Amino acid sequence: MIRQYIAYLSNLRITLSVLINYKTMMFNDLNVRVSPKALIGKNVRIGDNTVIFDNVVIGDNATIAHNCVIGEPLNEYYSNPDYENPSTLIGANSLIRSHAIIYAGNKLGENVTTGHRVTLRENNTIGNNTLIGSLSDIQGEVTIGHYCRIYSNVHISQFSTVGNFVFLYPYVVITNDPYPPSNDLNGGTISDYTLVGVHGIIFSGTRVGRNCLIGANSVVTKDFPDHSLIIGNPAKLVMDIRKYVVIGKGSLYPWMNRFSRGMPWENTGFEVWNQRQH
Amino acid sequence: MIRQYIAYLSNLRITLSVLINYKTMMFNDLNVRVSPKALIGKNVRIGDNTVIFDNVVIGDNATIAHNCVIGEPLNEYYSNPDYENPSTLIGANSLIRSHAIIYAGNKLGENVTTGHRVTLRENNTIGNNTLIGSLSDIQGEVTIGHYCRIYSNVHISQFSTVGNFVFLYPYVVITNDPYPPSNDLNGGTISDYTLVGVHGIIFSGTRVGRNCLIGANSVVTKDFPDHSLIIGNPAKLVMDIRKYVVIGKGSLYPWMNRFSRGMPWENTGFEVWNQRQH
Amino acid sequence: MIRQYIAYLSNLRITLSVLINYKTMMFNDLNVRVSPKALIGKNVRIGDNTVIFDNVVIGDNATIAHNCVIGEPLNEYYSNPDYENPSTLIGANSLIRSHAIIYAGNKLGENVTTGHRVTLRENNTIGNNTLIGSLSDIQGEVTIGHYCRIYSNVHISQFSTVGNFVFLYPYVVITNDPYPPSNDLNGGTISDYTLVGVHGIIFSGTRVGRNCLIGANSVVTKDFPDHSLIIGNPAKLVMDIRKYVVIGKGSLYPWMNRFSRGMPWENTGFEVWNQRQH
Repeated sequence: MIRQYIAYLSNLRITLSVLINYKTMMFNDLNVRVSPKALIGKNVRIGDNTVIFDNVVIGDNATIAHNCVIGEPLNEYYSNPDYENPSTLIGANSLIRSHAIIYAGNKLGENVTTGHRVTLRENNTIGNNTLIGSLSDIQGEVTIGHYCRIYSNVHISQFSTVGNFVFLYPYVVITNDPYPPSNDLNGGTISDYTLVGVHGIIFSGTRVGRNCLIGANSVVTKDFPDHSLIIGNPAKLVMDIRKYVVIGKGSLYPWMNRFSRGMPWENTGFEVWNQRQH
Repeated sequence: MIRQYIAYLSNLRITLSVLINYKTMMFNDLNVRVSPKALIGKNVRIGDNTVIFDNVVIGDNATIAHNCVIGEPLNEYYSNPDYENPSTLIGANSLIRSHAIIYAGNKLGENVTTGHRVTLRENNTIGNNTLIGSLSDIQGEVTIGHYCRIYSNVHISQFSTVGNFVFLYPYVVITNDPYPPSNDLNGGTISDYTLVGVHGIIFSGTRVGRNCLIGANSVVTKDFPDHSLIIGNPAKLVMDIRKYVVIGKGSLYPWMNRFSRGMPWENTGFEVWNQRQH
Repeated sequence: MIRQYIAYLSNLRITLSVLINYKTMMFNDLNVRVSPKALIGKNVRIGDNTVIFDNVVIGDNATIAHNCVIGEPLNEYYSNPDYENPSTLIGANSLIRSHAIIYAGNKLGENVTTGHRVTLRENNTIGNNTLIGSLSDIQGEVTIGHYCRIYSNVHISQFSTVGNFVFLYPYVVITNDPYPPSNDLNGGTISDYTLVGVHGIIFSGTRVGRNCLIGANSVVTKDFPDHSLIIGNPAKLVMDIRKYVVIGKGSLYPWMNRFSRGMPWENTGFEVWNQRQH
């Protein structure tokens, strides 16, 4: 009897679901929990099974997909009964794809997009129009600029700094311990317009200049100036990237002269846009 | 009072669960949502909290474990009110382990097995008897053949092609941008029977022949012919793999002569099986 | 009408949630399922949506965060109707962060901490006070000692052995197939106090001694003695690590003389503590 009753409830649930929402099944308000201390903007969509903790602010027109945790409480939560969750900001028009874990204290700009299953530990600052790829793990206290493309499975250690228009390809790691294990944690710095190839490693405390290209699988153990083409383990300066010419393609770098998809110079070209900034 | 009532409901729920299903707890039809536009085969098991979206077809005897999303709507879903989900196929006898995100438009063959937390973006084609390991991230528009072993955390970029009987070990990456960032996206190609070691990188547009072995941490920046042993950054042809002899073990490659677990030549040996194919 | 009723229920749910638990939202006993065959210690907290399967034992004061699966049934479960789940142990005072998948047969010591989304396949043994980082994938039948720091996204193949006080940095892989693909699976061994840098690879069957430092991106293809500084692909012995002197910092290794955070010699210093062990 009990089994039948459960089966009946189960069918009823599916039936109701069908009646209410016969085509789209993504935002059904199922198991959504929103803290009364959260501030949700206009036209925000929140996916099923998503939890929004205390002191989260979500800007207008943002989409938080299903199974996300926004404002995950910090470690102190587990032991301090007077714990108060720091504020968390998800900017307007952002899209947080499913299964994200975003800790309290993060500040995401407008138009930020994430892949699936990103983990953002506490107190990162992420600029406008930046993409954070699936499975990326940003360890906290990290600053990332505007219009960056952080691809899948990038790992950025605490206290690191990433400029604007930076591309980090899959499995790039920025480390923060100069003499492991130590207490002298100090992130790496990647400057504007620089690209780091797949599996590239940036050592703690190093600074890579603007407009650099770091080859796949390179290990950057020291500073490099602007416009460097950097390859190897340990990585070496191969040439000024502006001298890198591909037959039939000409000079490919700086890349901003030939690539504009999703960039603020998409309509004007880089040169015009760049002059307007100054 | 309210607190007590909730506690009562909570206990009641556990009690019912015990009565109904005192031993196994994996398929309880809890929070399962199946689109009325999905087609579910015979003897299909669907785990708790799993969602099956519109136009998904699941073959007979398949198991979709708990917390999966099958037929995840494409990006267009978020903005187009007339959005119609492309069809998705999970072949008969497949086992999709928990926490998978499989986008609409994927076509998985029969007997496909996945690890946990795989992400399959849209429109991949995956052959029969292929394994996709935990945390792997197949970026969409990718073709993978039959009987492949894609281990954990492999990242395959859009438009790449993987043959049959290919082994990709953990953290292998196939890239698709020849001059990053560009709009000339073009995946890599790995031919039948080839093995790529841990952390190996295959560059956009390159083609690795059949029966090759690519060493761990290698960076493949150009094409290689069949039977190559390939090592280094940039990867170089070390020798014809058929000449690679290990003392006491003899000639180990082609591997098909000595390894058959899970392969179609398991009972006949490779040579007999292979002749029958022609 | 139905739509209104659902909306009403939905509001009611949120309202109740607010009344009961107006500040903290982490342990609400929502969708928690605990097998009646599990043994839960005193003061254990179990997060929402977490499932505890048969024959799991959780020690006192442990915290299992939300969306975890503890005691995930082995493959045999899918086909054997008489399947009995092996016992699983989570030690006292452990903290399992959210979205963990811990298979049946794991034995975790006391004070074990995990990051998010760890995957522990069956029958690993993990010592006391060890940390397993986010997204790490321990493939089963692995032994890890006490006080280890396994950082994010480490992949350890079956049958591998990790000593005590070992640090494995992100994306380290220990492999287990000497001639892939083969049936001669045999893990690697890392001895006490050894550190493996980011993206390091330890080959199947190799043994790295005590007190070694393996550089980032190195590929360890053979055994190394105690106190080795090991770098490169294939990795080579660069020097006795005790001779490695950094100007202004002096001799940094063995690291135990200068680093004690979270270690059992935190109050006494390593030398005193170490003598007491003998």
